[in-house]
Amino acid sequence: MTESQLPVVQMRPYRWGDPTKTVALPAAAEAALGYLGARPPERAPVEPDEATLPDIALTTRVREALEAAVGASNVTSEQLARVAHTRGWSTPDLLKLRSGDASDAPDAVVFPGSHDDVLRVLKICSEHRVAVVPFSGGTSVVGGLAPVRDTFDGVIALDLGRMDGLTAIDTESRTATLQAGMRSTRAEQLLGEQGFTLGHFPQSYEGASIGGYAATRAVGQASAGYGRFDEMVVGLVLATPRGTITLGTAQKSAAGPDLRELVMGSEGTFGVITEVTVRLHPAPEIRTYDGWRFDSFEQGAAALRTLVQDGPVPTVVRLSDETETAVNLADPSDGSGPGPGGCLAIAGYEGVPDEVVSRRAAASAVIAAAGGEALGTAPGEAWRASRYLAPYLRDSLLDKGAFVETLETATFWSNLAHLRADVTTALTAVLTEQGTPPVVLCHISHVYEAGASLYFTVLCAQGADPVAQWHKAKLAVNAAIRAAGATITHHHGVGTDHRDTYAQEIGPLAVEVLRAVKNTLDPVGILNPGVLIA
Amino acid sequence: MTESQLPVVQMRPYRWGDPTKTVALPAAAEAALGYLGARPPERAPVEPDEATLPDIALTTRVREALEAAVGASNVTSEQLARVAHTRGWSTPDLLKLRSGDASDAPDAVVFPGSHDDVLRVLKICSEHRVAVVPFSGGTSVVGGLAPVRDTFDGVIALDLGRMDGLTAIDTESRTATLQAGMRSTRAEQLLGEQGFTLGHFPQSYEGASIGGYAATRAVGQASAGYGRFDEMVVGLVLATPRGTITLGTAQKSAAGPDLRELVMGSEGTFGVITEVTVRLHPAPEIRTYDGWRFDSFEQGAAALRTLVQDGPVPTVVRLSDETETAVNLADPSDGSGPGPGGCLAIAGYEGVPDEVVSRRAAASAVIAAAGGEALGTAPGEAWRASRYLAPYLRDSLLDKGAFVETLETATFWSNLAHLRADVTTALTAVLTEQGTPPVVLCHISHVYEAGASLYFTVLCAQGADPVAQWHKAKLAVNAAIRAAGATITHHHGVGTDHRDTYAQEIGPLAVEVLRAVKNTLDPVGILNPGVLIA
Repeated sequence: MTESQLPVVQMRPYRWGDPTKTVALPAAAEAALGYLGARPPERAPVEPDEATLPDIALTTRVREALEAAVGASNVTSEQLARVAHTRGWSTPDLLKLRSGDASDAPDAVVFPGSHDDVLRVLKICSEHRVAVVPFSGGTSVVGGLAPVRDTFDGVIALDLGRMDGLTAIDTESRTATLQAGMRSTRAEQLLGEQGFTLGHFPQSYEGASIGGYAATRAVGQASAGYGRFDEMVVGLVLATPRGTITLGTAQKSAAGPDLRELVMGSEGTFGVITEVTVRLHPAPEIRTYDGWRFDSFEQGAAALRTLVQDGPVPTVVRLSDETETAVNLADPSDGSGPGPGGCLAIAGYEGVPDEVVSRRAAASAVIAAAGGEALGTAPGEAWRASRYLAPYLRDSLLDKGAFVETLETATFWSNLAHLRADVTTALTAVLTEQGTPPVVLCHISHVYEAGASLYFTVLCAQGADPVAQWHKAKLAVNAAIRAAGATITHHHGVGTDHRDTYAQEIGPLAVEVLRAVKNTLDPVGILNPGVLIA
Repeated sequence: MTESQLPVVQMRPYRWGDPTKTVALPAAAEAALGYLGARPPERAPVEPDEATLPDIALTTRVREALEAAVGASNVTSEQLARVAHTRGWSTPDLLKLRSGDASDAPDAVVFPGSHDDVLRVLKICSEHRVAVVPFSGGTSVVGGLAPVRDTFDGVIALDLGRMDGLTAIDTESRTATLQAGMRSTRAEQLLGEQGFTLGHFPQSYEGASIGGYAATRAVGQASAGYGRFDEMVVGLVLATPRGTITLGTAQKSAAGPDLRELVMGSEGTFGVITEVTVRLHPAPEIRTYDGWRFDSFEQGAAALRTLVQDGPVPTVVRLSDETETAVNLADPSDGSGPGPGGCLAIAGYEGVPDEVVSRRAAASAVIAAAGGEALGTAPGEAWRASRYLAPYLRDSLLDKGAFVETLETATFWSNLAHLRADVTTALTAVLTEQGTPPVVLCHISHVYEAGASLYFTVLCAQGADPVAQWHKAKLAVNAAIRAAGATITHHHGVGTDHRDTYAQEIGPLAVEVLRAVKNTLDPVGILNPGVLIA
């Protein structure tokens, strides 16, 4: 594997996404940095070729076995490839790499070309006690790619990037079978050529891939219309050290537990998802995104609840709280905002013209009746145009010495206000105590009949040790979420960052169940050790 | 527990449902019996008090421990209670009881009053190696209540009938928490008083209960509108010999595998579901059910597919094939049928008036464009009025010496015609070989974006040994379903009847996973032994 073959997005791993894209800070954000007390870091980020990596523990014998399994050109231990497969894209992940810390780098990156390749690699790694970190888009923001080296005789990243085929398409059933390493962008292109879309557009869209979506239960911004990724999946193929499990004989069945739902969310700890069969939607002919203003978050939340409970449901719905609305619209060049003190909501519609027109009219009537003030399409289209940019803004903020990170949770409607208050209070307290009072923004990102998710953005100055600073904050907010009875993650996943709180959420007996499943499929425990369960 | 406290539906266990209800055979059915060669059985059914039961293996020590756990009045070994808890309501189950064979009767029936009672019972039974058959409605038609006595020192039925409380209702989130033993009829009554419905109306509605629905992934006839039962469930409490698992911190989460989906479908083998939190729907203000005629099953299936893929989706959709249409409408007193050679479809709408009117109009346009001929509301309302009666008709047919049984499966749309042909061919061949050529009826009972379920009714003469006759047919049809790549059950469950085919469907490694989960939660293996997994 030569350097030039590495996907371009991996070339600057201490920054999010496409390295050719940077987003300049708006003037208002520059001003906010002063208010927060952020000061530019003393040193520039360490470039990947100068990062400090662990010694390679992999023996020649194992290396040769892996090369025999997948081809010598598909195993690499070169510095840039190792750094590019070090951790994911959480803010602590980026900060560590910026400081030159690539201590979690794998010994080698292995690029299997087929399901059977994966089986062979897992067998070799089981025999030789080598930890395996399944890697597709590499976009985890919860420490899902940080292996515990522990007692293992090496660590490899198993990059599924070569496995990016559209294996089958069934236009009658509206399903497609995609290999796990297929990127979202490529999937949309290939499916689009046949008139379809997945409808899955998470913020990681530019980098993430199909297998990762299934393994982590990703949710796209258009989930109200197209569903969560786990709701799209009708079939899965899982490669494990013990062999293959193939699931999905019907969209829905009463044949025992739904084992697809056991594989999804297992985050590479039970096996490697090599192929996913997903439901397709016709590519929308039109898209219309509206902005709405509410006087308060509570009023807006009630409107969203009415929409999702009684319909009709827009394809995209989200509601920013007062602070997020103010911050996002602080740039005076964006004159389409809801005005001071209000909350901005987006309601987007995609589909065929007649249906979109009638659904939009009916939903708009519901929103207006719930107190929404129509702002026209400008704020909606502005949101849609910029929806993948926020993480790039984070890089610009980190460059200026600000700390910015996001987290998310979900609960039932009746607990939503309580949860938002508790998380905001916990974040504010723990960061203020550390001398870096934050601004906490929140929005409802996804809605369900019985509840919704809350997505928080935290912005403050970087302390002396920003990784430690956030670790402390994260512990506090994890505890607040647990105390509020909510789930520790709505769509980011568990990884290592949420592992202990997740164990509390499901309880010790359920953790034992997961461990029993893992022991059955991965008796040596090589698969993503330390992730999901201890 | 005195006899008078036993639920009334259990008093004539060799007949389906409410013992006060009988359905006389229509004249056309009488004629069909002659055509099939059915002759009245030589002897009348053995009454429950004369059935042959196994000796009670339970020791006095265990019996006393159970009485101490739940109260002496909540443990009974009287004949009628034991017979009433023998097996379920499949045709072989009824035939065995008709012949006086109650060899699968439990030694005792235990009625816990709380989750803690259940935990205590499971602990006692684990200590003393007593098998436990969780029993709520007792309506299994797949051998889900037939315990393997095997090496156990006794068998009890754990009847959850006392646990029938509405524990909590959250009108904002539209959820209710129901104890597992609550019957559907009572749930609808209690929820209806607060303006809600579950919207779950399976054919077992009159007898089944909440815990059983969750344990077996039941699906109601209005699933297109209200969803499957497993889609309604947002929370579960499971009592196991190892303790309690409580699940459901949000409607949807990315916190690991969805363990609710592991509990649902486990059919009492992992633990006893004691409480379920379900989503509610507003009780519909109006209901309108239309009949439609299609020239062929294929044409009707295509129409249903268009509806579910592109919308709008009726609350109820079903499509009978040519044979089922002809047989169901053979009674000339029902003059509303689609005429010879056609297929009858039902499209029902429930909700608030405006929405029902517009959805019905839009769906009707889709159906008409797909070749449907409108038959008005008479066939739809006739179906709705009689939808719980078919199983009673089975009793009348058994009385006359006919054999009638149903089975179901599901697959993707592109495989549906193939599956229907293969199942019909297999059933016809295996029963004709035995000298009892059948009539095989089929309908699409539930639709999904990617596929649909097929529900078959088989009618033939009883052979000399009708239980063996059907066993042979069942093996053949199970093999045909597996060979067609479909699921062995869409909503009846696995039980013992589908267990071996289910193992083939998910494969040996997945079976090992299930066994590992069971061993973790039920190390002695007392829970519903022989059901789901061997």
